[in-house]
This record gives sequence, C-alpha cells and structure tokens, in this order.
Amino acid sequence: MIGFSESREGQNNLKAFSPVTKEDLTGEFAAATLSEIKAATTKAAQAFPLYRKKTAEERAVFLETIGEEIMAIGDELIQRAMLESGLPEARLTGERGRTIGQLKLFADVLREGSWVEAVIDTALPDRKPLPRSDLRKMLVPLGPVLVFGASNFPFAFSTAGGDTASALAAGNPVIVKAHEGHLGTNELVAGAIKRAAKKTNMPDGVFSFVISNDVETIQHLVKDEAIKAIGFTGSYKAGTAILTTASTERKTPVPVYAEMSSINPVLLLPKKLQQDSDVIAARLAGSILLGTGQFCTNPGLIFLIKNESAEIFTTKLTELISEAAPASMLNKGVCRNYYAGRQLLQQQEGVRTLATVEDSSSDYKGSAVLFETDAADFIANENLQAEVFGPSSLIVKCNNEEELLNAVGALHGQLTGTVIGLNEEIETFSAAIDILRSKAGRLLYNGVPTGVEVCHAMVHGGPYPATTNPGSTSVGADAIKRFARPVCLQDCPPEFLPAELKDENISNIMRKINGQYTRANS
Amino acid sequence: MIGFSESREGQNNLKAFSPVTKEDLTGEFAAATLSEIKAATTKAAQAFPLYRKKTAEERAVFLETIGEEIMAIGDELIQRAMLESGLPEARLTGERGRTIGQLKLFADVLREGSWVEAVIDTALPDRKPLPRSDLRKMLVPLGPVLVFGASNFPFAFSTAGGDTASALAAGNPVIVKAHEGHLGTNELVAGAIKRAAKKTNMPDGVFSFVISNDVETIQHLVKDEAIKAIGFTGSYKAGTAILTTASTERKTPVPVYAEMSSINPVLLLPKKLQQDSDVIAARLAGSILLGTGQFCTNPGLIFLIKNESAEIFTTKLTELISEAAPASMLNKGVCRNYYAGRQLLQQQEGVRTLATVEDSSSDYKGSAVLFETDAADFIANENLQAEVFGPSSLIVKCNNEEELLNAVGALHGQLTGTVIGLNEEIETFSAAIDILRSKAGRLLYNGVPTGVEVCHAMVHGGPYPATTNPGSTSVGADAIKRFARPVCLQDCPPEFLPAELKDENISNIMRKINGQYTRANS
Repeated sequence: MIGFSESREGQNNLKAFSPVTKEDLTGEFAAATLSEIKAATTKAAQAFPLYRKKTAEERAVFLETIGEEIMAIGDELIQRAMLESGLPEARLTGERGRTIGQLKLFADVLREGSWVEAVIDTALPDRKPLPRSDLRKMLVPLGPVLVFGASNFPFAFSTAGGDTASALAAGNPVIVKAHEGHLGTNELVAGAIKRAAKKTNMPDGVFSFVISNDVETIQHLVKDEAIKAIGFTGSYKAGTAILTTASTERKTPVPVYAEMSSINPVLLLPKKLQQDSDVIAARLAGSILLGTGQFCTNPGLIFLIKNESAEIFTTKLTELISEAAPASMLNKGVCRNYYAGRQLLQQQEGVRTLATVEDSSSDYKGSAVLFETDAADFIANENLQAEVFGPSSLIVKCNNEEELLNAVGALHGQLTGTVIGLNEEIETFSAAIDILRSKAGRLLYNGVPTGVEVCHAMVHGGPYPATTNPGSTSVGADAIKRFARPVCLQDCPPEFLPAELKDENISNIMRKINGQYTRANS
Repeated sequence: MIGFSESREGQNNLKAFSPVTKEDLTGEFAAATLSEIKAATTKAAQAFPLYRKKTAEERAVFLETIGEEIMAIGDELIQRAMLESGLPEARLTGERGRTIGQLKLFADVLREGSWVEAVIDTALPDRKPLPRSDLRKMLVPLGPVLVFGASNFPFAFSTAGGDTASALAAGNPVIVKAHEGHLGTNELVAGAIKRAAKKTNMPDGVFSFVISNDVETIQHLVKDEAIKAIGFTGSYKAGTAILTTASTERKTPVPVYAEMSSINPVLLLPKKLQQDSDVIAARLAGSILLGTGQFCTNPGLIFLIKNESAEIFTTKLTELISEAAPASMLNKGVCRNYYAGRQLLQQQEGVRTLATVEDSSSDYKGSAVLFETDAADFIANENLQAEVFGPSSLIVKCNNEEELLNAVGALHGQLTGTVIGLNEEIETFSAAIDILRSKAGRLLYNGVPTGVEVCHAMVHGGPYPATTNPGSTSVGADAIKRFARPVCLQDCPPEFLPAELKDENISNIMRKINGQYTRANS
C-alpha cells in the first residue's frame, strides 16, 4: 500500500500462518520490491510539506478517524488477530481499546498544543554591548518516519500503534514495515488508516505500508534518504542491526528509537518477603505467565537474599509455575526462540531448573519454566541476562546485602526495575535501589512490571539494550517528541510566525517567555 | 588531571605552539596513558552517585564558583589564550564573559528547577476495568559525560564551555578531552574547575581533564563503558568517527551530540537586494571575515537570482573581500585545512574565483576568498558543500526561482539558514524558505548568522551533518537536556519521592499533573 494506491509488483507472496489452527490462513501478501519501496518513500517525502502544514486540529481529527475506522472493521479484525497471534479475544478487544486510546491521547496532546515547547526570547534592542535579536523556537516534525511493527501487540505496537500515532501526531508521514506475524491484521488496520486519511483530506503518501521478509529490501528502506527517523520494537538483534545501518551506512544518519531487550529485574526485600511470601509469589507468577510471558516488561529476573522466607517463596513460586498450562505463543518464530532461549539459559553454569512444564513447542505453545542461580554465577556470566521472551524467570539468590548490591550493579539497561519491600527496607537498601533506578526507565514499588499505562508520566524506555535512546519513551504523551526537533526563528517578521510563536497566544499554550513559563501573550 | 589528582605517567609530552610568535610556548603537557584514561573514567563513575545527589542549589553554586575561579586567573588567562589561538584580546575578554554567562545561565536554570520536566499522573484506584497506579517522572542525569573541546572558542566551547556546563548542571561528572590547539589555556581553566569543585565540596572525580593526540587512546576513552554520553564540537571527520565508534564499537552504545559541519546558506531575495545591495554586501563581508571566518556559523554560501542588482552586489562584495587583510588563524592545522579546502573548492568544475588575497599560510594567517558558481553546478556536485573553515564564501547564481528552489533543495543539514528579503518576498519565496527551514536549526531573517545568543530560545543544532542529533541544541538553556533522561517512579512511597515529584511543590516548579501544566501541589 503506497499512499492511496496498491501495488503488487513482486512474485514473492507471503502467507499468514495461524499458531491456533496450525494452517496458513486465507490471503496472499505481496512482498514489496525495491521499486515499490522507493515509490513509498518518494510519496512520503512529497506528502511531508503538505502534511506538516495541516493544523493541529486537522491532525487530531485524522488520528481520531483512524480509531473510528479501526472500530468500524468490527469483529473481523478481532477474529483475524486471534487466529494470527493466538491471543485471546478479551485481550485483543482490550488492546484495540488501548490502541484507540493512544490515538485519542495524541489528539488531545495536539489540541492542548503545549507539546511544541514554544520558547520566546524577545528582542533587547538597547542591550549593551550588543542588542539581542528576537528569538523564538518550537518543535517541528522531522520528516518521514519508518515504523517497524512488533509481533506481541498486533494493535498497540503495530500498524496503528504508538510509534505510528506519535509520528503522525508530530506531523510526519509514516511508512510501516509490517510484522509478518499478523499480516492480515496489519492489512485490515492499514486499510483503516488509508480510509481515515482520505476522509480527512490528508495528502497521498501520509501513510504507506510495506511487507517484506527480505533483509536486503529492509536495509534499502532503512538507508533511504527520505526516511528521517526510525521507530522499532522487537529483538535485540534486529534493533542493533538497524541502529548500525542507520548510524553508519546512510549518507545522513538518522535517529533510531528501538525498544529491544529487557528482563525487568525484581528486588525482593527480606522483611516484606517474610510477611507476604505467598501473595508475592502469586502476583509474580501471574506477571510471569501473563500473555504466555510475551511482554517486554515480563519479570525475567528475581533477586532475593537467602533465608527461610526466601525458601518458602521459592517453593510457592515453583509450585505455581509448575501448575501453569502451556498456552499459545504468537508465532512459530517466537515459539522456536523461546524454547531455544530457555535451553541456552538452562545450560549455563550454575543454573538450576526449579519448575518446568512439558515441552509444547510442536503445538506452538509456551510452557513455563523457573530457574535459579547464585549471585556469583549471575555476576560472572552475562549470558544469564539474555532475554528469554516467554514465560520464563530466573531467581538470583544472594548471600547477603553486599552480594545483592553487586548483582544489581552487574545488570544491563532495563525498561523496568521493581522493588518489593517495606518502607523501612526501602531505606536500608537504598544503595541497591539507586543502582536499579540508574539502570531502568521505570522503577516500580510493590507492583509487577507488566501493564504499561498510556499516560503523561509513563516512561517506556531505558538505557541500552532496553532501547537505543535512553532519553525517550515509546509509550505515553511524550513519545511524540521523538519525532520532532527544535527550530529557532530569529527576527522573523510577525506575520510569518507560526501561531504558536506569535505575540498573541491564540491557542493558549504554555510557553516559556524570557525564561518564565506562562500562557500570557508576549 | 584525574579528579583532584595530577598524573604524568607517559613519556609523550606535547608543546603549545603559538600561531602569533610562531614558536612553542612555555610548558610541557603530558599526553594521557591508557591507565590514566581508565583512572579518570573510574573516578568519574565513582563520583556520579555522589554528585547526582547534590541539590540543585549546590550544583548552581559549583557552576558559579567555576566562573569566579576563571575570572580570578585574571589577565594571565587572556594573554595565554591570545598567544595560543591568535584571537584578539577584546574577543577573548568577551568570550570569557560569555563563558561565565553560560555557567550562570545553567545556575539559574537549576534554581528555577522546571527543566527536570516533572510529570505526575495520580492514582485512580477506582478506575474500571483496571485501576491506575500513581506515576511520576522527571529527568535524571545520564552519568559521566565525555566532552571534546573545540579550537575556535578556547573558552566558550572548550574546557569550561557549554557542553561541560550543561553536563555538570544536569548532574553528570565530566571528562574533558582537551583541544591541543590551546593546551595552556585549557590547563588554566581546568585548574579553575578543580579549585571550584574543592571549594564547593564536590566529589573527587566530578571533573577530569585529559590530553592526547593519539587516535587509539582517544578511541579507548570513547569506548569506555563508564562514559554515558559524548559532547563534541569540531570537524565532520572526527565527529563522524566518534559517532561510529560510539554507536557500533561500544558494548553499550551512547548518545553522541556532535556539532560538526555547516556552511550556513544565505538567501538573497531580489527586491531587497535591489534596494540595499551595498548595505547587504557590507554586512555579509563583515560576517564572512569575522574572527578570520572561524565560526561554525560563518556564511559560506550565498544564493541569489541573476539580475542587475545581483551583479552590483557581487561586485561590491568582491571589492570588500579583496580589501580584507589576512588575519591570524587559530593554529597550524586550521590554517593548513583552510588553504587546502579553498583550493579544493577552486578546482571544482564551474567554480570561478571572484576575489582572492595573497596566500599568507606561511604566516599562519588566513586570507579571504570569494567564489561564484552556477546553480546547476552547485546542484550537480556535492563537493561544493564541503565546509571551508575560514574566510571563504561561495555565491550560487540561479537563473530563476525554480532553480533557486532546486539549489536550496540540494542543501545538506545546516546550523543556520538566513533569508534577506522584503516581507512581500518572504511570501513569494515561501516554498524555498520552507525548504531552507527544513534543513536548518535556526532560520534568520535579515541578519547574519554569526553571533549565537546564549538564551532560552536558541537552537545551535540542526540536521546531519550540522550535528549528529537534530533534536538537540548545544547552546542555550535546553542544552542541559542532552545529558539527562526521564525516569518514571510507579507507586513510589511519598517519603522516597524526590522533592520535584512530591505532592507538595516545595520548589514551585512548573509541572504537568494529570495532563495540566501547573505550579500547584498535586
């Protein structure tokens, strides 16, 4: 889908395989040729100067209309996504709601308007020794954004997901590289975006949608000079490859916002564990098993200090994991990688298996597993930090507080870190908690990391390898800022200033004028 | 200088050469060994958890004290910088003032406090279907920052320059890789920072300072895992090499804020040119020649449409450039590169020399030069966009508006773009101006690009190759944001919230609470 047109030049047709029926589903999906890729990026570049001139209200209506068009597909969309992803109906219905909620959030952000970070320093013509010019800046869109959809959220992190919504909101055309795990779902959603674009009079090329399973073709897309930023959610390997290409193989490097790998460590503090070991075990088991463990915030690592209540907790968690019925995984690849990953973890020195459920890989189902290891082994071997995407977790047993501190210090960057403890312990363990915070985008107290609220204060991000850009979030209102950059206008005649920077603050946005935050005129 | 200690392990001693006296100056400067590099990064990593806990007020006082200590060096600093850089006294005195002004600006930013972008979404325990947690986020420092000083601003973009000031302000230890063009100046300023750190009770390792002319040693520094971000101002070649190393050769890639190459195009619109050709020629000549052209915002490219007034302007500018006396360049390397760059430009197809002044390279002086070419040649040959760092400019003659549009469309990313025109023309040429804006960090109307105001609304940045990160500025208050990242605290017990995120807004900062900007309590 190249803008408003459709194209099927190539001979390579992909089929959508269902992990539920274990059969190919109806529909053939044409992989894009290089000339189709070029046509999509060219159209996006042509659409950009038209699209960025649309008012905030026009873009807001476009986003809301995408949501309406997605709803209008009705049950067909949910049914297709169920077959393609193996996810249950209630989850997908909820995720569709979240996806539409994200589009609405960005519509609200656009209408409120302050996200452009308008800053005005008025002229000081009489300043000595030199006068000051009139300087005004605000965020403007970067240009066409390439979005790689993820498999584990066929709606919320895919074709019309957070990256697409935030990039479109900021004023950029979007090209989605569809995830091959849910081709039919993608096509339905892409159709909804196209209809919304036409209905709301957006330029042809504001949205394109390409399918490919060919690394070279995808590299062409990443290297295309029309692309000005890249959003990605997926594996460490693919994300890092895109970062390398975008940073070193393009004529002009572009920012890559890749969300990749996180094992979401949980710190269990001893007194709280003593009080509530069963409740904590139950909550953690629920989080580990949720959605067959296929969340980027799945708690894959549990730190605790050896003692009696730690043993009770471990026994309880082992019991709960052992009882878990194998459940559908998203697709063949995720399933294969899950079993390979847990096998690799199991083979590492010092890793002991606590709970394991019969292998259901032939059925494309993930069976849960729980491992344990000692802090010394964890610290010595980085392989214990490889993400195992699925219902797997590793308990790291520490002999004392110092070992806990060192184990937390050995952690890679994470999307989340979780502390489960009494307030007095949060004080005692503040050094370890400080380190955990320095490694994570979000620090939770007495909760579980699965469940990412779409709101203003969310950070779904974190230091590498959680993401390639620690300064950003891919969920929540501020995700829009990834796809914009500041431009300063110096001594711009008032009639040519954009509304956000005019003296009169027509849209009543929050601005910084001569260093002071205000909604007043300048 | 490794934190509060000094070390001279190596045998490689550098000398400071003066382009003024043409002799080595007093003093031997020990190049850092690999073990000294490691000692500096280790100390920085150890200082980080201590330094980031300093209050905003404590950091503000540290920055101001650096300024006081720089002033306290007195005339010795100015005299040394004059000898090392060939820059005149008045310029250096002004630049010192600007440097101290930058430190004060960041002290003000810290005291005002809103720069942390505090965002609070309060809990909604009764929300259906799921309650919402309490989520609060703010910016926190990244960790030790490596700063590469530039040669052309021995104070303002060097040891205690904008990168150092903004990184320290954000709460990060800094390691400066000194520019070898002004070794003695650097050492004096580094001493001032050390004294200020001691006086204000900052941790050992909050600042270190290393000298090296060895690419491999510098690569070690860039690859050191303790370094969490890099600030750089300098050549395209060095900046791109650092970006590649930092993105692909480190275990954990880190953000690189490199400001590299810009030729700062100026668009001369015909009616304004007809009215004021002499005045415009005089202003542009002044900007081209300022500081022997050694500014990253030097206007190296002038677009105009061929007609009679364009000829009058060209003749006038040619005359002014021809009359310019050769003037000192910063150092041997800058001088050699300048003459090599202008020769390369001169040799390009279709480039004609309008004005040239006798070669003074043996005297380490830059003599000005003015070239012209036709738009078709400019569009066809990217070599005409190579930055010639010094008093050189290229007039690009366009046959008509369409050719002007295409020539502007062929531009690489720039720090600045300038439009000189009447208001009615700004309307007529809006397509070309829109394109120019899409390529630049700052767009000026009827001014000259040299002179970068240190204020809130400044953008000293822009698309690649002007910088490696179009979303940032290296000058002005928002430069602090390059060295911070957001962290979200979920359900954090109130007593452990940082002051900026507590319900009571003690420091009266601007926050976003449940989507609303406010200074109220939450």
